[in-house]
Amino acid sequence: MGFDPMKTLYDLIEVDEAIEVFTRILSKVNLQAESVRIDEALGRIAASDVKADFDFPDQDRSAVDGYAVVAEDTYYATQYNPVELRLVEERHDNSCIGKGEAFEVFTGNPIPCGANAVVMKEDVVRDKDRILVLKPVPVGGNISRKGEDYAKDSVLVPKGTVLNPFHIAIIASNGLRTVKVYEKLRVGIISTGNEIVSPGIARKQGEYYDSTGTLISQLLVQDGFYRVNYYGILPDDEEVLSEALEEAVLENDIVITLGGTGVSGSDVVIDAAEKKGEVVFRGVKMRPGRPTSSSLLNGKPILHLSGYPVAAWTGYEVIFRRAVAKAFNLVNYNRRMAFAKLSRRLPNQVGYQTYVRVQLKTVENELIAEPYMLRGSGVLSSLVFSQGYVEIPSNIEGYEKGEIIKVFLF
Amino acid sequence: MGFDPMKTLYDLIEVDEAIEVFTRILSKVNLQAESVRIDEALGRIAASDVKADFDFPDQDRSAVDGYAVVAEDTYYATQYNPVELRLVEERHDNSCIGKGEAFEVFTGNPIPCGANAVVMKEDVVRDKDRILVLKPVPVGGNISRKGEDYAKDSVLVPKGTVLNPFHIAIIASNGLRTVKVYEKLRVGIISTGNEIVSPGIARKQGEYYDSTGTLISQLLVQDGFYRVNYYGILPDDEEVLSEALEEAVLENDIVITLGGTGVSGSDVVIDAAEKKGEVVFRGVKMRPGRPTSSSLLNGKPILHLSGYPVAAWTGYEVIFRRAVAKAFNLVNYNRRMAFAKLSRRLPNQVGYQTYVRVQLKTVENELIAEPYMLRGSGVLSSLVFSQGYVEIPSNIEGYEKGEIIKVFLF
Repeated sequence: MGFDPMKTLYDLIEVDEAIEVFTRILSKVNLQAESVRIDEALGRIAASDVKADFDFPDQDRSAVDGYAVVAEDTYYATQYNPVELRLVEERHDNSCIGKGEAFEVFTGNPIPCGANAVVMKEDVVRDKDRILVLKPVPVGGNISRKGEDYAKDSVLVPKGTVLNPFHIAIIASNGLRTVKVYEKLRVGIISTGNEIVSPGIARKQGEYYDSTGTLISQLLVQDGFYRVNYYGILPDDEEVLSEALEEAVLENDIVITLGGTGVSGSDVVIDAAEKKGEVVFRGVKMRPGRPTSSSLLNGKPILHLSGYPVAAWTGYEVIFRRAVAKAFNLVNYNRRMAFAKLSRRLPNQVGYQTYVRVQLKTVENELIAEPYMLRGSGVLSSLVFSQGYVEIPSNIEGYEKGEIIKVFLF
Repeated sequence: MGFDPMKTLYDLIEVDEAIEVFTRILSKVNLQAESVRIDEALGRIAASDVKADFDFPDQDRSAVDGYAVVAEDTYYATQYNPVELRLVEERHDNSCIGKGEAFEVFTGNPIPCGANAVVMKEDVVRDKDRILVLKPVPVGGNISRKGEDYAKDSVLVPKGTVLNPFHIAIIASNGLRTVKVYEKLRVGIISTGNEIVSPGIARKQGEYYDSTGTLISQLLVQDGFYRVNYYGILPDDEEVLSEALEEAVLENDIVITLGGTGVSGSDVVIDAAEKKGEVVFRGVKMRPGRPTSSSLLNGKPILHLSGYPVAAWTGYEVIFRRAVAKAFNLVNYNRRMAFAKLSRRLPNQVGYQTYVRVQLKTVENELIAEPYMLRGSGVLSSLVFSQGYVEIPSNIEGYEKGEIIKVFLF
């Protein structure tokens, strides 16, 4: 009768501690920088600050189609008392426009000297060589100032940025054809399980197709800065797994194993890792994803995830992804989030941090989060049909129906 | 004095009409289906419903580590009055467990016949060949039912889905190694402008690097179902552009031009398209992005976007992206959205639908949207530093400070 029902729980570590510990061992990965063409840089991580070589724009430009003027001329202009200005037909390099004059400009044209504002075409009536201004314009009005977008030496893209199309475009605007990024993080993935078979192969009753390997691989591929090496499905054999792990850590920066990690079942993968390495943590106080574990082999971090897709996803999302963001100081790798009203009570087992997938609906000016809870909380379709997830801290008994809660968006 | 200041506005069409018209001409694109390996399918569009070939799971399985039991045996179990059950060591194929018996199972194991629930390991004290159950379990408790994830013939992934890792994983779980997707949409991109030069080239005062070409290309590349053909920067020459457009429509499903579309400035690209084709619309009541236009050449849709990055982005985001979603019946191509409180007033010029980039901050349980409005609303850095955008309908004068507004998230 010596079984202590709390023992398993005591052995598990907190989510935050797991993230911290895994961050620490990930930080040992020494990422080299490489230079890539900007049109090959999407999703890569900037390896240094990208700074502006010049002010942009490099001179004052018109922000609209209209007429460059001396702003003071227009101050009393109204539709009923328009101000008449003489149109300067052609401006010479050394001439400036003066009071009482206007010069036609299109969007992007430089502002002629002497002018300090642009009246929009819509606010003017043109009559041959003169214009009637119907509306005042302030000093600087409709002028895109030198350096308005960015100033010389300012940081356009900070180190650690996961490059999106906007970042790449602003790098291009500064005339750069290449950008320094980190080499791709090489992640080895090993699926385990005697009952797991590859898609496309005939299957017996009790065998399951390896969806978790596909899930985790594709999540990494989607991010653009990983190189995924998939080692296939290995049997629940400590010897085989131990050799495979040694090979995988040699060829990768990080290794992720899927399956064979039941905290109370057979932990063959962790045993295999421990044989020549060391266990870092074994189980996390989270649901799903409790079997999430970590070990170190030849100095390389291994993350052991459940073979079950939703539990594996939770370990990936919460431990792996957040630790990667911290270890490599990524500046924009957090999930977008929104606040939503819970459609029903969301109970939690105190002691566990719980992750619940939710569907989001809009009702009037409010997001409603409909949790996947009862049946189906652990199934793949709950990920397919949800738009985000809720994190219930381990120290509370849940959220009440109608409560406003934070949702991390996919 | 015959200039009508409202004329330009009258010529523009409403945003919704522009989307509808562009959708109509996009719908003529005849996308063929092709079969691709699931690990090459990320971001592609499912060309037909993917249906389940079998129930998943295909038998009742234990959802936890514990003991399969007859639920009714446990109904009166408490910590103080545990129910004792006899542990069945090994179950034979044709034998079932009966009342008073229990059989050890690990997560994922099939449920032995006779059992109708699983008691969690934590709720049991084990003593050699018997267990003491401390807590009742209802019929079906902790059992993952046959077909719980999905039933045979149910639609796993509907036609028109832009495949994400979850979709690909559920397809894998059904044993499929390939999936039918649409061929990539071929999009030709032509930048125009005598003052535009390629990144990496020495630049004179008054010349600008082609950031808009990079921006629109990368936005398309990010989506996974486009094949981008970039034709480089062409001069503002009607003859040259006309020939380039003819070539581009021949080699692509859609063509996007950037620059040369000032509604009141030189419309050389649209003129070039009109020469051998027809203009579909010329200018949209939106800000930024007013010059957004469309034409048809040899039956192929052309979208003319501004050369300015933010105006081009707005035309892409609002007209192109939404029309693509409609024309190809994409089921999950809408931007995620959130509601946020406006940090300050957001004025609008009635008659125009206005798009304002916003930064999002969290203050307590609320998102605060800080708009980029005054200086810098048209600059590339406003896209880099924002997390989403707000759409102000053309018939309202703006949003008030403190108002809750919808934000489309990047």
